[in-house]
Amino acid sequence: MTTQPKGAAPALGYGVMPVKIEGQRVFLIDQRCLPEKVAYFDATNLDDMCFAIKEMVVRGAPSIGVAAAFGMACEAARLAAQDSQAFAQGLARARTMLDATRPTAVNLTWATKKMFDSAMLAQHANMALAPLAKRLFEEAQEIMQEHVRANKAIGEHGAGLVAQDAHIITHCNAGPLAVCGWGTALGVIRSAYNKGLNPTIYVDETRPRNQGAKLTMWELKQDDIAHMLICDSMSGFVMARKKVDLVVVGADRIAANGDTANKIGTYNLAVLAKYHQVPFYVAAPLSTFDLSISSGAAIPIEERDQSEMTQFLGLPNTYEGAHAFNPAFDVTPNSLISAIITERGVLYPPFESSIAALDLTTI
Amino acid sequence: MTTQPKGAAPALGYGVMPVKIEGQRVFLIDQRCLPEKVAYFDATNLDDMCFAIKEMVVRGAPSIGVAAAFGMACEAARLAAQDSQAFAQGLARARTMLDATRPTAVNLTWATKKMFDSAMLAQHANMALAPLAKRLFEEAQEIMQEHVRANKAIGEHGAGLVAQDAHIITHCNAGPLAVCGWGTALGVIRSAYNKGLNPTIYVDETRPRNQGAKLTMWELKQDDIAHMLICDSMSGFVMARKKVDLVVVGADRIAANGDTANKIGTYNLAVLAKYHQVPFYVAAPLSTFDLSISSGAAIPIEERDQSEMTQFLGLPNTYEGAHAFNPAFDVTPNSLISAIITERGVLYPPFESSIAALDLTTI
Repeated sequence: MTTQPKGAAPALGYGVMPVKIEGQRVFLIDQRCLPEKVAYFDATNLDDMCFAIKEMVVRGAPSIGVAAAFGMACEAARLAAQDSQAFAQGLARARTMLDATRPTAVNLTWATKKMFDSAMLAQHANMALAPLAKRLFEEAQEIMQEHVRANKAIGEHGAGLVAQDAHIITHCNAGPLAVCGWGTALGVIRSAYNKGLNPTIYVDETRPRNQGAKLTMWELKQDDIAHMLICDSMSGFVMARKKVDLVVVGADRIAANGDTANKIGTYNLAVLAKYHQVPFYVAAPLSTFDLSISSGAAIPIEERDQSEMTQFLGLPNTYEGAHAFNPAFDVTPNSLISAIITERGVLYPPFESSIAALDLTTI
Repeated sequence: MTTQPKGAAPALGYGVMPVKIEGQRVFLIDQRCLPEKVAYFDATNLDDMCFAIKEMVVRGAPSIGVAAAFGMACEAARLAAQDSQAFAQGLARARTMLDATRPTAVNLTWATKKMFDSAMLAQHANMALAPLAKRLFEEAQEIMQEHVRANKAIGEHGAGLVAQDAHIITHCNAGPLAVCGWGTALGVIRSAYNKGLNPTIYVDETRPRNQGAKLTMWELKQDDIAHMLICDSMSGFVMARKKVDLVVVGADRIAANGDTANKIGTYNLAVLAKYHQVPFYVAAPLSTFDLSISSGAAIPIEERDQSEMTQFLGLPNTYEGAHAFNPAFDVTPNSLISAIITERGVLYPPFESSIAALDLTTI
């Protein structure tokens, strides 16, 4: 039922990667089908890639960024038979389409901008379109590889914050599936496990899409790390009555002051951690930082369809026609964050200065 | 789909009652089937009543108390053909069985003790068993009627705490179905609505059994009170970004110092209310107070089956064989409670003294 797909790494290898390249084709693990089955979705076509991001075939801010980079590359390959102007216009359109799929994660627009800028630079240097398209595909692959390297570094830095036999709460899914690599929040946990620290994980269910129950639980099982499902509403009880040493979560966008947008429910967890004096860590690659935004108040919050809450696996969860409010993310203010774990090390408050000291021009 | 059963009160009448008496038979609305359909469960037999409480055909602390009183009365009727000793022993056994169905709500043991003591007193006075059984059935009906009266008073007292156009978060279900009357938390809201205060309610889904989504949403719709479903994980976001004037919840057991056991997730909500300086109110009848317990630490917390979280309506919510921690209740310390609304008025901190001043001998 939960066997790994052919060619996947063994437990505590890099994990099951959400993007699989075969020649010039791009396949995504359909995360909507996990943990029941491992199915692949062909996202080589731009429209299919937009659908895949919007409908959460692929999800998790860094994985969305990688997927969008391949979306740009595949469209460039399709446009390579046209003239230079049509190529540039087509690629600009692809960028706009991809950017519009989901508003909150900044890794998406980071990746499409990076790919677009790279294409325009090559065109400016009069590079022919066929080799340019080939180069863009390689660049998307480099972005993916860079995620893997960055993740591993995040894991290493984060594991230094984890004590022996630590009990940890995490929210949503920030493992290999979400970040196209070792994991961010789950990368910290996996690195701690690799060091023999024997962590035990309480996994928030993460309503309304249940990524904790469906994906994080499954990934922890692949790795044989001790874990247990809790409802999002139980975190306070667990902190008050059980041993909880730290909370670690991923991020969809981090503002210049450290305010962090992440999956809805993260903010509740951060307030509860503060109340119980439990350290609250955010783990994210540098591509998650958006220095154009001074604070979390300016981060756009995606509202998703009410049916995600009024139905559950297609079955009614309330009366027919009921209204629901469904923000997909929330913002945790920097005052509730103990540290931010990046591939370049651990950032501490005051985040305004520790983030300002990062050189983001080289990512 | 959500039409009221025959004979039910119109909107802002007393609401749909969870217990229906026909002659000497006791029917319960099967709350597991709401809101899809209104079905009745015959709980006249003691075993069936125990099943109904354990499996949450009937739920909500006060409704459980009423149901248990009828469980005692029905068993007394069955035992009336036997001799005095067998009657007393049988009734003691019924009390033990009913008390064992669910551990957290104190209204259950309050009701079975009241019925048992009443029976023993009548036996001591040499009352014949047939009229005694009849008297016990009437006493169960009186307990139900007293709940209705007490609820209405709770609503009246609580409405005084609600401002015009208030936005309110509530958790789980504390309306007519839960309390066999006007409602406790929902009674406050219904009374506020009746006064023309035009409240708007954010309804916590209340994982893992979704009583908010299934029952509270449905009851608010019957009453035409403005309402919207949120996930339990969204309460902080709603408090931070929307207008929230107060939180009001019910209770399953209140210790002598005001610490309150209620549906899991209540404690999270109370911590979040404190952080956002939103008043947090508990609404409960006096039968919910347990002065034998000095603080919440001594309240037993029921753990329910993992399948409530690992499955949803029989469909998998995580991988097969996954473990889940499923405490059904949590305890909110008195320091997070702004006031406790009872049928005798509103109690304020310090609760040790305001609760001690109550005369509970007359309930």
